[in-house]
Amino acid sequence: MNYYQQHQSEFLEGLKTFLRIPSISTLTENKPDIRRAAEFVRDDLKAAGLSAELIEGEGNPLVYGEWLGAPGKPTILFYGHYDVQPPDPLDEWKSEPFDPTVRGSDIFARGAADDKGQVYLQMKAVEGLLKTTGRLPVNVKFLIEGEEETGGEHIEEYVLSKPPHLKADAAIICDTEMFAPELPTICTGLRGMVYGELHVRVGEQDMHSGVFGGTVANPIMAIAEILTALKDRDGHILIPGFYDRVQEPSAAEQRAWKQLPFKAESFRQNEARVLELTGEPEQGILERTWSRPTLEVHGIRGGFTGEGAKTVIPAQALAKISMRLVADQQPDEALEQLRGAIEKARPKGVKAEFKFLHGAAPSLVDPDNEYIRRCAKAMEEVFGHETVYIRSGGSIPIVGVFQQALGIPSVLAGFGLPDDNLHAPNEKFHIPNFYRGIEAIILFFGRLGA
Amino acid sequence: MNYYQQHQSEFLEGLKTFLRIPSISTLTENKPDIRRAAEFVRDDLKAAGLSAELIEGEGNPLVYGEWLGAPGKPTILFYGHYDVQPPDPLDEWKSEPFDPTVRGSDIFARGAADDKGQVYLQMKAVEGLLKTTGRLPVNVKFLIEGEEETGGEHIEEYVLSKPPHLKADAAIICDTEMFAPELPTICTGLRGMVYGELHVRVGEQDMHSGVFGGTVANPIMAIAEILTALKDRDGHILIPGFYDRVQEPSAAEQRAWKQLPFKAESFRQNEARVLELTGEPEQGILERTWSRPTLEVHGIRGGFTGEGAKTVIPAQALAKISMRLVADQQPDEALEQLRGAIEKARPKGVKAEFKFLHGAAPSLVDPDNEYIRRCAKAMEEVFGHETVYIRSGGSIPIVGVFQQALGIPSVLAGFGLPDDNLHAPNEKFHIPNFYRGIEAIILFFGRLGA
Repeated sequence: MNYYQQHQSEFLEGLKTFLRIPSISTLTENKPDIRRAAEFVRDDLKAAGLSAELIEGEGNPLVYGEWLGAPGKPTILFYGHYDVQPPDPLDEWKSEPFDPTVRGSDIFARGAADDKGQVYLQMKAVEGLLKTTGRLPVNVKFLIEGEEETGGEHIEEYVLSKPPHLKADAAIICDTEMFAPELPTICTGLRGMVYGELHVRVGEQDMHSGVFGGTVANPIMAIAEILTALKDRDGHILIPGFYDRVQEPSAAEQRAWKQLPFKAESFRQNEARVLELTGEPEQGILERTWSRPTLEVHGIRGGFTGEGAKTVIPAQALAKISMRLVADQQPDEALEQLRGAIEKARPKGVKAEFKFLHGAAPSLVDPDNEYIRRCAKAMEEVFGHETVYIRSGGSIPIVGVFQQALGIPSVLAGFGLPDDNLHAPNEKFHIPNFYRGIEAIILFFGRLGA
Repeated sequence: MNYYQQHQSEFLEGLKTFLRIPSISTLTENKPDIRRAAEFVRDDLKAAGLSAELIEGEGNPLVYGEWLGAPGKPTILFYGHYDVQPPDPLDEWKSEPFDPTVRGSDIFARGAADDKGQVYLQMKAVEGLLKTTGRLPVNVKFLIEGEEETGGEHIEEYVLSKPPHLKADAAIICDTEMFAPELPTICTGLRGMVYGELHVRVGEQDMHSGVFGGTVANPIMAIAEILTALKDRDGHILIPGFYDRVQEPSAAEQRAWKQLPFKAESFRQNEARVLELTGEPEQGILERTWSRPTLEVHGIRGGFTGEGAKTVIPAQALAKISMRLVADQQPDEALEQLRGAIEKARPKGVKAEFKFLHGAAPSLVDPDNEYIRRCAKAMEEVFGHETVYIRSGGSIPIVGVFQQALGIPSVLAGFGLPDDNLHAPNEKFHIPNFYRGIEAIILFFGRLGA
């Protein structure tokens, strides 16, 4: 048995320690935890035998680590993030979000799959090899960030400044999911993002609905009118020009998707856990999340929502809105289109402003390169099944930045599962995939260094 | 000078003490304050020379007081409420809501006008007369409740049980407002109410918008679709049958309203303080609040609304919705119509349930009775201006109950002003009207008892 096979339980304990740090990047109050998580990654990389440091800048620290003892061999850049989403709604968690708990073959905690579990398996693969053989078959760099969940763009600025030490041949990103348990998966496409807040104001202060009801606009109603003007009941986005740049997936890709073991009813019942699947009727379910853009409202706040009854017409209201974009849509253009559509839909008597929070371009990777092919082979060996190629409906902005600034492809080899409850209560990571991920990376390195 | 003229500053201090009690009836945590406010009213009535007690039942205590030393003379039943609305949003108050503060000629506090200031002027009018002459020209009863702001129906149940000691010839309710400063006003119509919560559910738990966006319904979007199906952009309510029972105001009433010193632009700028007046274009502004029903959303809650960005599709959302009704609409019928319209507007993939919280019938009083005429004369004498007859867009359910259970008319003689910020931050009461209200009631009693 190798070191990494002998130390599985230590690796799981180490992951628990990582998961206990509530490194929520969207909340100011968790700033100290952000730093603790960054230091944890740095110190763990050092203990594994890499050199490692924090790169300090305006945002949360980046962790950079490297092992460059294989001259003439390829250099692989690992990317991941140590920050996590807020855990609310707290009362729906079965165990505490920052008290990692094993139930069955899963470990439950905020960040278990997104992305601490997957960052940590990268780190443990490298540690496993170094402790077993004293060296690695390839050169390795780590760039682990702490602003992925806020859409913070400091890592992008940093990479776009092209620091010489980031030079690499390919990136590996473990922040996506497998299409099904036991089915090794490489992701070739990601949706982009425009995220912001719609602020609507009617007047200076809240009003009594008896005194003013019938004569003044209502900001919640105004948001309702704007939202329904932006999207129809079948999920079609009504923003003029919005679909103009949307590319259909290739015929080959569409055929491959049809071969995937996908059952809409199982997706509805076991993953989404919703009453009914909805969305554009003329699109398949996979196409709706992989190759079609969305417009969603993530939260809304306005007026009185406490216990009981308060007959107030609020002076203002707020909605958090995003658009997921697909190739070849452009965030800047989509933002302008959205703002134009909001202004056009704005009802009488209200001011409406869309405050942009962050954006990311969609990305589409050509799977025909040696890194993706060799990684796919390594995963096939570990999982005993041919690797499938899918897309993801999520957004990983760094993929486009690596391509643009470093000229390198990204291998999106994720080990999460579709029911891992990312961004939701009871997030989990399937523990066998934690170990298989470690092994797959080790095999991949062996093939690359041969 | 009479006792009540000599004691103006003591009366104002007493009002401050009353206003310091945060008797918010919509919040469970303020239950002890509700009781303190009830006891304050009881003890103050006793100190004035009445007998007084708390009537305990399932809800918040009623305060009952009486002075019956004028046999053969009419009996007047005072109604008011000692409970108040919650003060939020707290950060928009210029002084603390429960630290009554005099600025200029106004006293600022939650409940200053609605309704503690107006209840207290009733009490001080009676105290003033009793301390001046040792007796009253009429018999007086007080019935002061603590659930007006929650729509609690315990007082209605109590009055509908027709307790013999409530027998009276007319009720006086000081819980409305004057049409303009210096313009004594009697209100002859009130809107009714159906208030409840719209609960919408899509699935079992919040979802990641990258993974599921495009394939699942969004409960906030569903509320938006329901709201816009219930009301159009011009303020017309689209619920089938909703307007069938709505009565037009009489030609005489419409003529009288046209004589009122009403300027839409001043109403917009100084009272509503909104960007623009809206509502049914074919109706006048007064008609929109007095003789037309409304549908308003008072608050909405769903998803993530904290700092930053969270790309969640919430599993559920909630909106607080009311309809203000006008004669001859019926709350039960309007509720059924609303529920039917919600079910019809409910988009695919969501469950929608309207949870009824409370209702009240609209009321319309015939001004041609001796109590209203004499009260109008007394107010004219104090204010030096002819009394005007208006309606109010608010709801005072007890008016209909007094008519039904006790067979008595209500005199709605309010001393609030249109810019008193009821239910909003910086609620105030105009101090001169506090004193004039006391004097008007004393003169009214003199006329009645003559």
